Amino acid sequence: MTDLILTTYDWVPEAPRGFVRDLRIRWALEEEALPYRVETTPFKDRGPEHFAHQPFAQVPWLTDGDLTIFESGAILLHLGEMSDKLLPTDRRARSECKEWLVAALNSMEMASVPWSIFHFMRQTEGQMFGFFDNWVKDLRVKRLETVLAQREWLAGSFSIADILMVDVLRLIDRFSGLDEAPACKAYVERGMARPAFKKAYADQMAHFAAAD
Amino acid sequence: MTDLILTTYDWVPEAPRGFVRDLRIRWALEEEALPYRVETTPFKDRGPEHFAHQPFAQVPWLTDGDLTIFESGAILLHLGEMSDKLLPTDRRARSECKEWLVAALNSMEMASVPWSIFHFMRQTEGQMFGFFDNWVKDLRVKRLETVLAQREWLAGSFSIADILMVDVLRLIDRFSGLDEAPACKAYVERGMARPAFKKAYADQMAHFAAAD
Repeated sequence: MTDLILTTYDWVPEAPRGFVRDLRIRWALEEEALPYRVETTPFKDRGPEHFAHQPFAQVPWLTDGDLTIFESGAILLHLGEMSDKLLPTDRRARSECKEWLVAALNSMEMASVPWSIFHFMRQTEGQMFGFFDNWVKDLRVKRLETVLAQREWLAGSFSIADILMVDVLRLIDRFSGLDEAPACKAYVERGMARPAFKKAYADQMAHFAAAD
Repeated sequence: MTDLILTTYDWVPEAPRGFVRDLRIRWALEEEALPYRVETTPFKDRGPEHFAHQPFAQVPWLTDGDLTIFESGAILLHLGEMSDKLLPTDRRARSECKEWLVAALNSMEMASVPWSIFHFMRQTEGQMFGFFDNWVKDLRVKRLETVLAQREWLAGSFSIADILMVDVLRLIDRFSGLDEAPACKAYVERGMARPAFKKAYADQMAHFAAAD
């Protein structure tokens, strides 16, 4: 067993705490009960060392022996492949898991992150916000609601796809985007009730609080 | 060898032609010289059959024997795993390929698609467009430029990560977002010069033109 090292910022402002993307990775690591330690990179002064590990100067990245991996979706795929706990081995379920992982990244989050930026910047009036609001609520959440009304987890059993989708939906819920989607809301609550999520969330909050 | 079936719309308006996401899959299939056929789903009337294959009523999806897969990123992963042509077998290069595939989907395209919507809707004035313009050009393209100034392809040899990233950058280039990024522009040109891209592009254009 090599030493897994998760790198996140040393500090972030209050607003993103609980939503920084190292949370997804902490959650998966806790689900798989893999030993790991957390290292930090400066939030305020992002230098060459940061760019060498993450070309867009984001976090997190994971070090696994000789590998260093950025992009939370790619790290989750990597951790999924390390055991059969979070990535099903059955051919069809494994394919479904990867498909929903990408759907969370590229169908759901591609709409929800821009929409949340409008909210963060208090620009929720006007034509462009209306476009993004329709995209998130009618073209994404409403359709996911139909899927989640019929299943507990996206790919048979709980998987990396759920870690990602629950985390994406949490941000939508922060700005009341799930108010008309009870199945999505219940799904987020199921995810957040897992001991591994609670541990990951408490750890991230404590990590940033300690830096204040 | 099972029969691969790629499903796309029967018709789309002029504006998205050449950019519909079946192009990414055609391109990969041509690179791998895999036999496939194209089927269609109605663009204007998206019914239960469509939702059964693609919960957000988008295209494409791929049928491979008993599997049906949506999300272009997930389909590319699946096709990559079918041979060693587009997904390196070396452990480190394979990890890099998946990391850049996700980066194209979730770091680059998450910024570029909203930005392109502002362009399509001719809303390129004001604070919110300024935010997205900075996100695409300064926080994404400029940083990718540094990476591509030093390498021909993202993960050693040409891979599914390049198919995705070139396709994402093509849309940015459509609205002049690469004008200050010569290495990105040259990379897009290298990708588009490949016979498999040319075949895929010509096939998509012919497919939609035949439906007019």
